Amino acid sequence: MRIAVVAPGRPISEANAARVSAFMALTYPQHDVVFHPQCYLSDGHFAGSDDARAAAFLEVANDPQYDAIWFARGGYGSNRILSRVMPNLGPAARDKAYLGFSDMGFLLGALYAAGIGRPIHAAMPITLGSNDPGESLGWALAWLIDGDRNALEPSLNGEGKGRPAAAFNLAILDALIGTPYLPDLTDHVLMIEEVSEPLYRIDRMLFTVAHATQLKGIAGIRLGHVTHIQENDPPFAETAEQIARRWCDEMGVPFLGRAEIGHIALNRVVPFGVA
Amino acid sequence: MRIAVVAPGRPISEANAARVSAFMALTYPQHDVVFHPQCYLSDGHFAGSDDARAAAFLEVANDPQYDAIWFARGGYGSNRILSRVMPNLGPAARDKAYLGFSDMGFLLGALYAAGIGRPIHAAMPITLGSNDPGESLGWALAWLIDGDRNALEPSLNGEGKGRPAAAFNLAILDALIGTPYLPDLTDHVLMIEEVSEPLYRIDRMLFTVAHATQLKGIAGIRLGHVTHIQENDPPFAETAEQIARRWCDEMGVPFLGRAEIGHIALNRVVPFGVA
Repeated sequence: MRIAVVAPGRPISEANAARVSAFMALTYPQHDVVFHPQCYLSDGHFAGSDDARAAAFLEVANDPQYDAIWFARGGYGSNRILSRVMPNLGPAARDKAYLGFSDMGFLLGALYAAGIGRPIHAAMPITLGSNDPGESLGWALAWLIDGDRNALEPSLNGEGKGRPAAAFNLAILDALIGTPYLPDLTDHVLMIEEVSEPLYRIDRMLFTVAHATQLKGIAGIRLGHVTHIQENDPPFAETAEQIARRWCDEMGVPFLGRAEIGHIALNRVVPFGVA
Repeated sequence: MRIAVVAPGRPISEANAARVSAFMALTYPQHDVVFHPQCYLSDGHFAGSDDARAAAFLEVANDPQYDAIWFARGGYGSNRILSRVMPNLGPAARDKAYLGFSDMGFLLGALYAAGIGRPIHAAMPITLGSNDPGESLGWALAWLIDGDRNALEPSLNGEGKGRPAAAFNLAILDALIGTPYLPDLTDHVLMIEEVSEPLYRIDRMLFTVAHATQLKGIAGIRLGHVTHIQENDPPFAETAEQIARRWCDEMGVPFLGRAEIGHIALNRVVPFGVA
């Protein structure tokens, strides 16, 4: 399997790429990971200009030699290339897996909405720090290469087995709501994770989820990890889970429990659709 | 004219209410402003529980003795009472003006979407600090009581005269997009203001505006004041206006210039619809 890495949001370092290549050589020596040089570009907030990021993504997505596109990192910015890339994906793009999470939810969502490829919510190369055992990365590759179901978010081997699912960072989901890039999630279990937000914003974003016309048919919500919660002044009276349960009630969909996804060391895999 | 003040988000102090009452007595002695005691409640983040805030709003909105409802303050929380109040507004609620901005955009938007009353983007009682001359507050009352067109956002007396307009805090507009509480803004000039956000979030929120199916028919966008911009790491390469112009281009609507609204000392009045 040949896996191409591009960075539709922020850049990674060559040292980070070298660590991932070494990790691949140790764990999956018979498979290739290829870092597009665009991953190392820097243009203000972004890994190169919008044009450069869009061109790199289209180059690898439309190249039949690659079986999968692995997004290097989140950060912010993949929404800015949607209008450039989505109309220009050719036949080769339809057979690929696309892996990432956080800001990359813009692309995963838009691809799923367009029925292109297999979007997969999974850890990204940036995860592999210098003192990181690579457990999340290993799960991403184990699912991609071996179809190892142990890599999956646990509910997908339990009560959620055979049921379609999708996973998003809450802020990214919120930004997609109301646009044509939000996929039809009817009958899907929707898993949500969040990082670095105060609770009042989590509450506000879940208001939008609860009242979104496009999401009326979802099967239920699972709450992933909500990490690095920012201080709320004054303190918010509820936890993230209490907030999620309340909005599920208002939405009229079941709160299905927690999910092992998020900005955490062990971010499990959620393939969009039926795993 | 009798004006009732309630606080669907956060509370104000009795000292603040006393300042506003004194201001009214000096400027409009023949008119009454009545502060509902709910304004002073405190329940964690909010001016009382969701039930208490909803009940106070319904009490004054459905009471024919009041000609206008003036929201005391923004902060966060008016979205949490929408499902409680919107189905329960009676005939007396239809004849009233509703004034506020920032978080109160949830209510202004939902009222406009439902065709109830006259929503008006205007300064709120919290604005009147101890060293404040009350200029913004004066404009709000001048429009409400005297229909003084000098109170209006300047474009409404110029090139925007006779054209419907609406004004929102960008984060609140973003949270409304995709829900039934977002009004139909076809042919409206949309004015947007923001406070205390980093530029990458402003960019992300304007992506949602630019791609929102519900907003396809707007006449154009005016950018209000964007204040207390939070640090962006790394620095963002564009100003708020450059960001707004770029997304207007992607949306295919004209960027119409700036607007004199926002979290500023002189926040001008924008009545929803034709002023």
